[in-house]
Amino acid sequence: MTSNKWMIDADDAVLLLIDHQSGLFQLVRDMDFTTLRNNVVTLAKVARIAKIPTITTASVPDGPNGPIIPEIHQSNPDAVHVPRNGPINAWDHRPFVEAVESTKRKTLLIAGTLTSICMALPALSALAEGYKVFCIVDASGNLSQMATDLTIARVTQAGAMPIDTFALMSEVMKTWDRPEAMDFAQVMVDHVVPAYGALMDFHGAAQKSAK
Amino acid sequence: MTSNKWMIDADDAVLLLIDHQSGLFQLVRDMDFTTLRNNVVTLAKVARIAKIPTITTASVPDGPNGPIIPEIHQSNPDAVHVPRNGPINAWDHRPFVEAVESTKRKTLLIAGTLTSICMALPALSALAEGYKVFCIVDASGNLSQMATDLTIARVTQAGAMPIDTFALMSEVMKTWDRPEAMDFAQVMVDHVVPAYGALMDFHGAAQKSAK
Amino acid sequence: MTSNKWMIDADDAVLLLIDHQSGLFQLVRDMDFTTLRNNVVTLAKVARIAKIPTITTASVPDGPNGPIIPEIHQSNPDAVHVPRNGPINAWDHRPFVEAVESTKRKTLLIAGTLTSICMALPALSALAEGYKVFCIVDASGNLSQMATDLTIARVTQAGAMPIDTFALMSEVMKTWDRPEAMDFAQVMVDHVVPAYGALMDFHGAAQKSAK
Amino acid sequence: MTSNKWMIDADDAVLLLIDHQSGLFQLVRDMDFTTLRNNVVTLAKVARIAKIPTITTASVPDGPNGPIIPEIHQSNPDAVHVPRNGPINAWDHRPFVEAVESTKRKTLLIAGTLTSICMALPALSALAEGYKVFCIVDASGNLSQMATDLTIARVTQAGAMPIDTFALMSEVMKTWDRPEAMDFAQVMVDHVVPAYGALMDFHGAAQKSAK
Amino acid sequence: MTSNKWMIDADDAVLLLIDHQSGLFQLVRDMDFTTLRNNVVTLAKVARIAKIPTITTASVPDGPNGPIIPEIHQSNPDAVHVPRNGPINAWDHRPFVEAVESTKRKTLLIAGTLTSICMALPALSALAEGYKVFCIVDASGNLSQMATDLTIARVTQAGAMPIDTFALMSEVMKTWDRPEAMDFAQVMVDHVVPAYGALMDFHGAAQKSAK
Amino acid sequence: MTSNKWMIDADDAVLLLIDHQSGLFQLVRDMDFTTLRNNVVTLAKVARIAKIPTITTASVPDGPNGPIIPEIHQSNPDAVHVPRNGPINAWDHRPFVEAVESTKRKTLLIAGTLTSICMALPALSALAEGYKVFCIVDASGNLSQMATDLTIARVTQAGAMPIDTFALMSEVMKTWDRPEAMDFAQVMVDHVVPAYGALMDFHGAAQKSAK
Amino acid sequence: MTSNKWMIDADDAVLLLIDHQSGLFQLVRDMDFTTLRNNVVTLAKVARIAKIPTITTASVPDGPNGPIIPEIHQSNPDAVHVPRNGPINAWDHRPFVEAVESTKRKTLLIAGTLTSICMALPALSALAEGYKVFCIVDASGNLSQMATDLTIARVTQAGAMPIDTFALMSEVMKTWDRPEAMDFAQVMVDHVVPAYGALMDFHGAAQKSAK
Amino acid sequence: MTSNKWMIDADDAVLLLIDHQSGLFQLVRDMDFTTLRNNVVTLAKVARIAKIPTITTASVPDGPNGPIIPEIHQSNPDAVHVPRNGPINAWDHRPFVEAVESTKRKTLLIAGTLTSICMALPALSALAEGYKVFCIVDASGNLSQMATDLTIARVTQAGAMPIDTFALMSEVMKTWDRPEAMDFAQVMVDHVVPAYGALMDFHGAAQKSAK
Repeated sequence: MTSNKWMIDADDAVLLLIDHQSGLFQLVRDMDFTTLRNNVVTLAKVARIAKIPTITTASVPDGPNGPIIPEIHQSNPDAVHVPRNGPINAWDHRPFVEAVESTKRKTLLIAGTLTSICMALPALSALAEGYKVFCIVDASGNLSQMATDLTIARVTQAGAMPIDTFALMSEVMKTWDRPEAMDFAQVMVDHVVPAYGALMDFHGAAQKSAK
Repeated sequence: MTSNKWMIDADDAVLLLIDHQSGLFQLVRDMDFTTLRNNVVTLAKVARIAKIPTITTASVPDGPNGPIIPEIHQSNPDAVHVPRNGPINAWDHRPFVEAVESTKRKTLLIAGTLTSICMALPALSALAEGYKVFCIVDASGNLSQMATDLTIARVTQAGAMPIDTFALMSEVMKTWDRPEAMDFAQVMVDHVVPAYGALMDFHGAAQKSAK
Repeated sequence: MTSNKWMIDADDAVLLLIDHQSGLFQLVRDMDFTTLRNNVVTLAKVARIAKIPTITTASVPDGPNGPIIPEIHQSNPDAVHVPRNGPINAWDHRPFVEAVESTKRKTLLIAGTLTSICMALPALSALAEGYKVFCIVDASGNLSQMATDLTIARVTQAGAMPIDTFALMSEVMKTWDRPEAMDFAQVMVDHVVPAYGALMDFHGAAQKSAK
Repeated sequence: MTSNKWMIDADDAVLLLIDHQSGLFQLVRDMDFTTLRNNVVTLAKVARIAKIPTITTASVPDGPNGPIIPEIHQSNPDAVHVPRNGPINAWDHRPFVEAVESTKRKTLLIAGTLTSICMALPALSALAEGYKVFCIVDASGNLSQMATDLTIARVTQAGAMPIDTFALMSEVMKTWDRPEAMDFAQVMVDHVVPAYGALMDFHGAAQKSAK
Repeated sequence: MTSNKWMIDADDAVLLLIDHQSGLFQLVRDMDFTTLRNNVVTLAKVARIAKIPTITTASVPDGPNGPIIPEIHQSNPDAVHVPRNGPINAWDHRPFVEAVESTKRKTLLIAGTLTSICMALPALSALAEGYKVFCIVDASGNLSQMATDLTIARVTQAGAMPIDTFALMSEVMKTWDRPEAMDFAQVMVDHVVPAYGALMDFHGAAQKSAK
Repeated sequence: MTSNKWMIDADDAVLLLIDHQSGLFQLVRDMDFTTLRNNVVTLAKVARIAKIPTITTASVPDGPNGPIIPEIHQSNPDAVHVPRNGPINAWDHRPFVEAVESTKRKTLLIAGTLTSICMALPALSALAEGYKVFCIVDASGNLSQMATDLTIARVTQAGAMPIDTFALMSEVMKTWDRPEAMDFAQVMVDHVVPAYGALMDFHGAAQKSAK
Repeated sequence: MTSNKWMIDADDAVLLLIDHQSGLFQLVRDMDFTTLRNNVVTLAKVARIAKIPTITTASVPDGPNGPIIPEIHQSNPDAVHVPRNGPINAWDHRPFVEAVESTKRKTLLIAGTLTSICMALPALSALAEGYKVFCIVDASGNLSQMATDLTIARVTQAGAMPIDTFALMSEVMKTWDRPEAMDFAQVMVDHVVPAYGALMDFHGAAQKSAK
Repeated sequence: MTSNKWMIDADDAVLLLIDHQSGLFQLVRDMDFTTLRNNVVTLAKVARIAKIPTITTASVPDGPNGPIIPEIHQSNPDAVHVPRNGPINAWDHRPFVEAVESTKRKTLLIAGTLTSICMALPALSALAEGYKVFCIVDASGNLSQMATDLTIARVTQAGAMPIDTFALMSEVMKTWDRPEAMDFAQVMVDHVVPAYGALMDFHGAAQKSAK
């Protein structure tokens, strides 16, 4: 079963994590900090397991935007970092676009903080160049719920596919019948569905008590 | 009056209830448990009354996802169950697709827990194969409201019709002037609009007191 | 300035108020009762002022759905009532469609309680027959916010224009420079923006104190 | 059955409506405008029916606070108005306190906009002078929900009894077996529980259809 | 371990279910209908299992308040009904107080719809006569969340103990090591914590799969 | 990098600020007053910095709608004001359209209070005449969240691009590597992201303490 | 009229602003940043106008807590700053207590970020030493709404008076008939009730148009 | 500075963690799972650092309540576990009370899932025996927000002190000037205020860039 125009083909995908910086994270008000960080780490880890090239960038990290949160490159040492000073839209920064082009892949999985800007603007630019774009809104933080609602409407209208982190992970993973299944499961329990860990403990205890 | 491209033709419809499992139900946070279970049971019962073929599946029910909630097959003994281990997207599981194809019907009514994955992925796959797809979002549970909002935008963009349980029931039922009217009414009072029962008691009491 | 395909031409419009019944009103949970009733009355009065033909219908008013709320026909004595027993979708009831057709108008302004059913199903049927349809969601009540969100997505996808009551009133009124301006203003103060009345009192007092 | 120290004795009560002015009403964000106005009118009408002396005051009505909303004195022509310029706490204004004292009553029913100030400060002052005080919080508007939560805690701690408008009306009315029962009922349907009117229509229709 | 002044002694308790009528239930906006009904039924069943005398009353059930919801007496055939016309505060109705007094018990467990009136007023009256009073707020419905917040503050200030239905059930049950344990468990699964049923299914399936 | 059909080209843009009047502002309930005013001022200042022509209009400013909030023209003395009496939709007022046409620009950035009317109607009219339209929803205030949700769906469906104020500012600014960068930064700190100012203080203090 | 035990006597009051630091402000999630900052600045300015001694302190300002927000001392140059390293509860820091004692005043007006700690702990310590304490909760920021609810309950139980910023300002100001009235008004419009400014513009325009 | 009757003296305190079991955790709806687990782990770690004896218990862990979440004893290997079958209120289980008594301490810090039962009932029992009790509500999960609100009111009324996890940690820690300061800081960053970690990264980066 191959993926279709509305779905992700992991072998054609690149993950773009844009401006997930510790200063900008303080401004986020549409999600709680822990969930946002967990979702971003999930993406970084899932991309590594699924061999999806990952590119990060940060806007003026020496200033009040702050440095990239360290968990990203710790979770995915293979991720390529493209420094950037000046352009707000990462797609306006030629080295960033070249990093994307060098992967020869045409499906972009984009998350960025702030959602309306760091995620949305590169998404709109890339769509205009023919890329297939997925916007991972719950791994992107924003100033307000209203701004997020507007951004979902805007990028969807332009043809990007809005998606949440766990859906993306599941679509990339495709099946439990693969060698890396337990690696995905660990990410799931550690980051994207922590309550699943308690459910597994519960299940294990029930089985143990039955024996 | 025949149905049109935006509406349900009950004679062409199949109901797909995907991964409504007791472990996954514990993870749901965009709806309350009772409403979700009631809506799922409503679908199972309505499908049986309206002779809409029903197919269920569950992902690894012996593990932490848990077994299908028993109310589904109790409410609709005619439902066909397709076991499944491995593929996350039920549409990637050939026996499941074959069960759908064997009905010769082309309108899919899909609910699944979790919404972003178990409902959305089969919907997107089936749309690409030309099916007419209705996504019953309030009979599907999800990790967060944000994930549900994203999923509604995603499946709608791809051409699926989002719908709620009571709308689906009403559209399938079409008229009170049919032999099974009281069967539908019973489902309505027991599950999808419980407050209607109190309204009927109220109405009956008013009429009784008037006589 | 004439209206365009996305806007209302009052001279081509018919108002359809479907199943605004006192029993069904008790079930509404996505809006508060007073606002819903005020919005429905606003539509009835505005239609009368603007000479927009108005058609009402009710489903089994002798049963637990209850009678139409009396304020509608009190506010708009010109409204035509089409009784209906059986068909859930008012558009499946031939006399109702004939009442619409007899107006020779092709723009439908539809409100109905419950939103997902009484407003949405006739909207979808009429769209398929080539009507231009506006869905007045805040003059329609529903079982839940989630059901309303799904319905807005569904009818918009099919081509209906979602609208709120005050926007509709303003679009129909078009200008304060018309003989009925004060009639519209009265509706505004009495029903759709009650706080405007206090603002007018405030303004009057300020002017009086200045003199 | 006489009332006790925690309850209202209507024969010992005075209603104080403080600073319900059209400018201040624009600032209210913890309640919607219509509900607030309806609750204030309810109090005015109920006091008149129950012969509870009513005193109003307004702070600088010629300025941006605006005039008292006219519905109050229209609803209760017997209400006494005490003009006031300067003192923020109405209890700091001697003529206001004298108006209270002249009633010889010791139970104060206080509502005021803004809640934290116009309702709370006179309540605290009166408590210190030995009055029994009821604070009608949902007939008082405030800048924020947080400010209201703080005020409820503050006045309760000081010994005032927090109460809502419908509870107050019911406690004052005491029984349906009194001559003014229908007057109270009219207030209830018109202002404090508008949905009850639809329920009465529903009930009447059910009885009529039964005959 | 005996209960103390802040806790319930089941052998000294009487359950009072006041005005849980199908018309009044339509007005409730601080809780959803299903949860309220389930909580009321829980109380009725728990009282029967624990041999706590239960007294019901209804205000003018032939009018728009509607009849008592039938589930109460169906769930607890031993409950005594005291009819009442006129007095709003049930404690102002002598036969009701006599029914309480005849039990010789001094701890009252009170739920009523509407919370601010039907639950609160009898609670305040009984406190003044020296009863120990528990107010079961989530088995009482009210017009608004604000009215409920005010009522919790009021009755607590007067000395009543606010409590939720599941806490009350647990306090009355005291231990799983008693003959009626499974009867309590059934109430828990059927009414007060429906999700617990899915957890039990999950647990059973895990144990079965382990064997 | 040039902008595309989904994005803003600042050199082709005109800013339209419609009916941001002090009376209408009192009616807004989907946003808080301070945020709305800050967003409007942000637009006025950003347009001036980026040399985007700005046109304001007001509907009957001598009446209860009140005058334009003075901050707009204080922040952007170059803005052109077009007085208007009568037409509700500013696009129905010929001098307003002529002011737009005289700029020779075809990209409209529209904000208006109330959103459903003052922002939406001109947007829909201009779209029909071939303009590219951006609707700045969080610089427009509305009567309710539901009305705003409906309006976002409506204008998006018609082809307008919904956007938030900070996204618009960022898209117009494009890069920090421009002479006016500090002017934009000042707007950001003063109005659209006030918390960023505290972050800058924090950053400066950290750097100072390190030296 | 003198103040009583539940109210503020400005001549006996000291304002304590504890740990309003730019790092800690980033953690606040029970209020929005702008409102919190405005409320703190209101307190600083009001204290100065009313000649209430003001004491600030900060915990480890060179570290991640950050420096005190500069607006405080800018708004109130008379405020005394007591540096502090180590003790979390400012009351455990002897120089801070001595600063309070040196004022000879016994009424403390306390705000602190975070509420549960920086405001609550000194409040509880001071109460035990016989001070009269007011806790200004909406000029204190906290990690969550739940933490704030718990803190209000805790400090109230211990005898502190919870209060909001505007109530405090009004209580301190007492009357508009004093020389500093316009200074207070300016604070009100600039910080604590910004919408009041628009109302004043509105009022002025109405008066102007009347002349 | 010693602690007073409203505050915690760490040397007199015992931590009681009651029924934090993986099955019961699935039922929690007043907090999110991650925050609840983090708060519970915080308590376990803080108690160990501060040498506060810790006692855990679980109700029927082999059944659907599930086992204690393993993080508790992993975080605090010194904690004593008291098994329990039968009594719902842990204080009704003699070995549990004996474990408390053996510590010779009289200040109880209690958290339990579900809040209304597992936290509240032992708190009420212990208060009656003269213990000083702190109820850590945000380290206790409950079925609904309403149930939590009622429980806060109930235990506060009985004399328990409601508190949140971070306040408790700060009160126990008292000062940064102690040998274990960095151990407390680690708990703070890892569990109770995760955003503080990003703030520290930010601060460090600012200092590094300054050098």
